Amino acid sequence: MRNFKLGIEYDGTDFHGWQRQPGLRTVQGLIEEAFAGIVGKEVQLNGAGRTDAGVHALAQVGNTVIDTSLEPVQLGKALASKLPVDIHVYSIEEVDMKFHARFSATNRRYSYYLRTEPTAIWRRFAYVVTPPLDLDEMRNAAASMVGDQDFTSFTPTRTADEHPTQCDVRHVDVTQHDEIVAVTVEADHFLHHMVRVIVGTLLEVGRGRYGAEHIEEILCKKDRNLAGPTVPPNGLFLTDVGYK
Amino acid sequence: MRNFKLGIEYDGTDFHGWQRQPGLRTVQGLIEEAFAGIVGKEVQLNGAGRTDAGVHALAQVGNTVIDTSLEPVQLGKALASKLPVDIHVYSIEEVDMKFHARFSATNRRYSYYLRTEPTAIWRRFAYVVTPPLDLDEMRNAAASMVGDQDFTSFTPTRTADEHPTQCDVRHVDVTQHDEIVAVTVEADHFLHHMVRVIVGTLLEVGRGRYGAEHIEEILCKKDRNLAGPTVPPNGLFLTDVGYK
Repeated sequence: MRNFKLGIEYDGTDFHGWQRQPGLRTVQGLIEEAFAGIVGKEVQLNGAGRTDAGVHALAQVGNTVIDTSLEPVQLGKALASKLPVDIHVYSIEEVDMKFHARFSATNRRYSYYLRTEPTAIWRRFAYVVTPPLDLDEMRNAAASMVGDQDFTSFTPTRTADEHPTQCDVRHVDVTQHDEIVAVTVEADHFLHHMVRVIVGTLLEVGRGRYGAEHIEEILCKKDRNLAGPTVPPNGLFLTDVGYK
Repeated sequence: MRNFKLGIEYDGTDFHGWQRQPGLRTVQGLIEEAFAGIVGKEVQLNGAGRTDAGVHALAQVGNTVIDTSLEPVQLGKALASKLPVDIHVYSIEEVDMKFHARFSATNRRYSYYLRTEPTAIWRRFAYVVTPPLDLDEMRNAAASMVGDQDFTSFTPTRTADEHPTQCDVRHVDVTQHDEIVAVTVEADHFLHHMVRVIVGTLLEVGRGRYGAEHIEEILCKKDRNLAGPTVPPNGLFLTDVGYK
């Protein structure tokens, strides 16, 4: 058996997310099917981040342990011939058997793109918001989110018990370039919907619904109702996964 | 009657081009239909550049002469409510009755995006080519295309007689940013398919099929067969239209 690490890009628009689900078009499901067609038996693919329906990835990482004599380049070519146009495996390499795309990951980075002007071209990849936004106050709020903190308030109530809710958020950056506002968040791991609730909360601050100083209270109270709405998935990209 | 100038952005992927055609989904056709719904009679919209099926626009310019008491802001809102998600009218202003989006234009700029790496995210907006490309030689070839010259060799034979084939090409730039190579061309006007044949010809040079010095001969001979292939429409964007 050999372990292969994959770098994966996808346009999430037409997928029911990363995770395999019977009868639904998912990224994991389609890559597993492609591998199964190559090695002639069922294959399991691990993924670093289980992106939701409509969320994109510039740099998802997967790994799969399979029995094959094919070299990475050949595997890559075989995969490319079987995958649809909205999935692209841009790298494949053999790694140590201990490597696990999800459990070995120490770092994930997501970027969320807001547009302050409606758009036809970028509609699949950005969420349109109405200006003005107070970017300085959004940056103050972002700073309060950094640190090793409990993010229960930033994930749906039903899922808060499934995972450790303590997340080590390394940075939350708010940058603007013309009519695009990008929110980039890096952490050791993320809770379900966490980036989208972070962005929804920053938008509440940007619109003056409450000030940056309110973030600390939202975190403390561990109540999902206190944070902002979950913004749509189309603006969200998984952009990096780091390993030791 | 009042004359309105429109700034128009569209994702050309799902259109049969700009120009109205019975029974087909076109940008001009849909905007004319939207206007007709607002003013209650047939409307004609002029466009600066008649982009082909699959070609995008970040800054198409249109104008329409209509009988309405609505102000530009109201017209814009009414239009937005009637247009599909892949067309966005980002500006509308009242202009002099003499203004004509096509005949008043003195300058058009197009950018064509090549990707030297396959892509899932950008597949609608870039044409994937296999490296290596000799960018320096492509830039030499691009320099030979600049000037007030006859571009008969860069347009399909059947259309070469319909328009003045002399085009004043102001610049042809080849730039690279990571895995994206952008070709930007500016001229007073363009012939049918001209940008796509220019890019196809630059690619022949970039791949070493012939040298930059061959461009002059291609232009002189006025023979479409001498220039490179017509690259696909999906990488092409109309990015600017200039007026006196």
